[in-house]
Amino acid sequence: MAQRYVRVSSSQGQTFYGLLQLNRSVQVLDAPPWLGGKGTELILEVEDYTLLAPCAPSKIVAVGKNYAAHAAEMGTPVPDEPLLFLKPPTAIIAAGRPIIYPPQSQQVEYEGELALVIGDRTSQCSPEQAQSRIWGYTIANDVTARDLQRKDGQWTRGKGFDTFCPLGPWIVRELSAGARLQTFVNQETTPRQSVSTEQMVFAPHVLVSYISQIMTLLPGDVILTGTPEGVGPLEVGDRVRVEIEGIGELENPLQASPRGV
Amino acid sequence: MAQRYVRVSSSQGQTFYGLLQLNRSVQVLDAPPWLGGKGTELILEVEDYTLLAPCAPSKIVAVGKNYAAHAAEMGTPVPDEPLLFLKPPTAIIAAGRPIIYPPQSQQVEYEGELALVIGDRTSQCSPEQAQSRIWGYTIANDVTARDLQRKDGQWTRGKGFDTFCPLGPWIVRELSAGARLQTFVNQETTPRQSVSTEQMVFAPHVLVSYISQIMTLLPGDVILTGTPEGVGPLEVGDRVRVEIEGIGELENPLQASPRGV
Repeated sequence: MAQRYVRVSSSQGQTFYGLLQLNRSVQVLDAPPWLGGKGTELILEVEDYTLLAPCAPSKIVAVGKNYAAHAAEMGTPVPDEPLLFLKPPTAIIAAGRPIIYPPQSQQVEYEGELALVIGDRTSQCSPEQAQSRIWGYTIANDVTARDLQRKDGQWTRGKGFDTFCPLGPWIVRELSAGARLQTFVNQETTPRQSVSTEQMVFAPHVLVSYISQIMTLLPGDVILTGTPEGVGPLEVGDRVRVEIEGIGELENPLQASPRGV
Repeated sequence: MAQRYVRVSSSQGQTFYGLLQLNRSVQVLDAPPWLGGKGTELILEVEDYTLLAPCAPSKIVAVGKNYAAHAAEMGTPVPDEPLLFLKPPTAIIAAGRPIIYPPQSQQVEYEGELALVIGDRTSQCSPEQAQSRIWGYTIANDVTARDLQRKDGQWTRGKGFDTFCPLGPWIVRELSAGARLQTFVNQETTPRQSVSTEQMVFAPHVLVSYISQIMTLLPGDVILTGTPEGVGPLEVGDRVRVEIEGIGELENPLQASPRGV
């Protein structure tokens, strides 16, 4: 099994990067692994930590309409260049944590996505160099208030609510070619989304190069590579699960806002 | 004269928050002032520091079309709610540092703006409570590649290039009612933009409350309150200066990209 890189909060409230062991204990690293963090002798048993999102990016750069069939279902053409938007880091939550349904929206939807984690400060990087800047891979759900996305035109509000970026549960270093991405709702056995990540219009290394011509990427920054066709609404009480072959599963429940829906 | 809060890099390469003195020396604070930083005995003389942007936000939340006359010059109505977008923190540069003209664009424009600096972690804040969450005020230039903004529809690329968010030179705690914002290019004596900040469609405390219903604001986060009418193009070699009464002047030169224009 591939090594799994996690970030955890200890029962004393400290935040650590670590390696998840087969028995679910975590070997603590002395720094983020992309900054050269090495294993320490500190081991946290499963009852002694809470899983956090596996990195704490300075920014989340996301890509719209990067699968042809999803662009078609949104009634729009595939762009001739990657279409970028940003999600605020405050939107990130860990696997298992609740997505809060905001009272401003009537239409909250899932968008399962492959996420890239950047290892090095990266600016003006060629596509050939870009693969080496991708430190690892994880899973994201680009949760979207579709009604607000449509109303505003700009996607910042519709995609920027607190809890609208489930990320994790861990990072792996390698992704096999054609790894399948699937999104499931509740106990359904038929996926709502199912695609080979090879069907992206712009491949991960192309995205990293393109973004790096615009803005400098920093270690730990995250790129969301776009969602395939099959997006759809969620209701309070649903559980949504994004799976990527070779990485794992990212599952989150939907909760009503304490302010009401 | 109002107290001026700065952030500097010392000649030893350390970053400090500080208070700018009348003789241009800086009294170092032991933490960011919005986190309770207190004055220390360390004084940096003018030759011993470089001015940085006055804060290092986890996010920059910006507001589109917040002056009616600018919405009109863009050929669009004033939105019925604030229209939000994000600029990446990597776009920030200090006063005096060059704005780099990216080779991807043929139309880089200035947008002078009042910037708010958030003092406290702020979520679900009422308009009445919001004024107290604004720790201070500074000046921003929301530099925009207008051609790319139009092409993409999403504004992230057009407004997200490295160097596209000049910010500073310092923060003041108070802004007088109706403070005038003006933008000048080169030696011109007639401002390209000139407005009373009271003419905003949505006032600062309304913006803070609105944003806090969507995403949690963190100490040091920055809100750009929108640009007035009079936006226009810049050329390599130009100098652009945004002035706000009671704060000061933010001036930056435009430079060609080393990759060519």
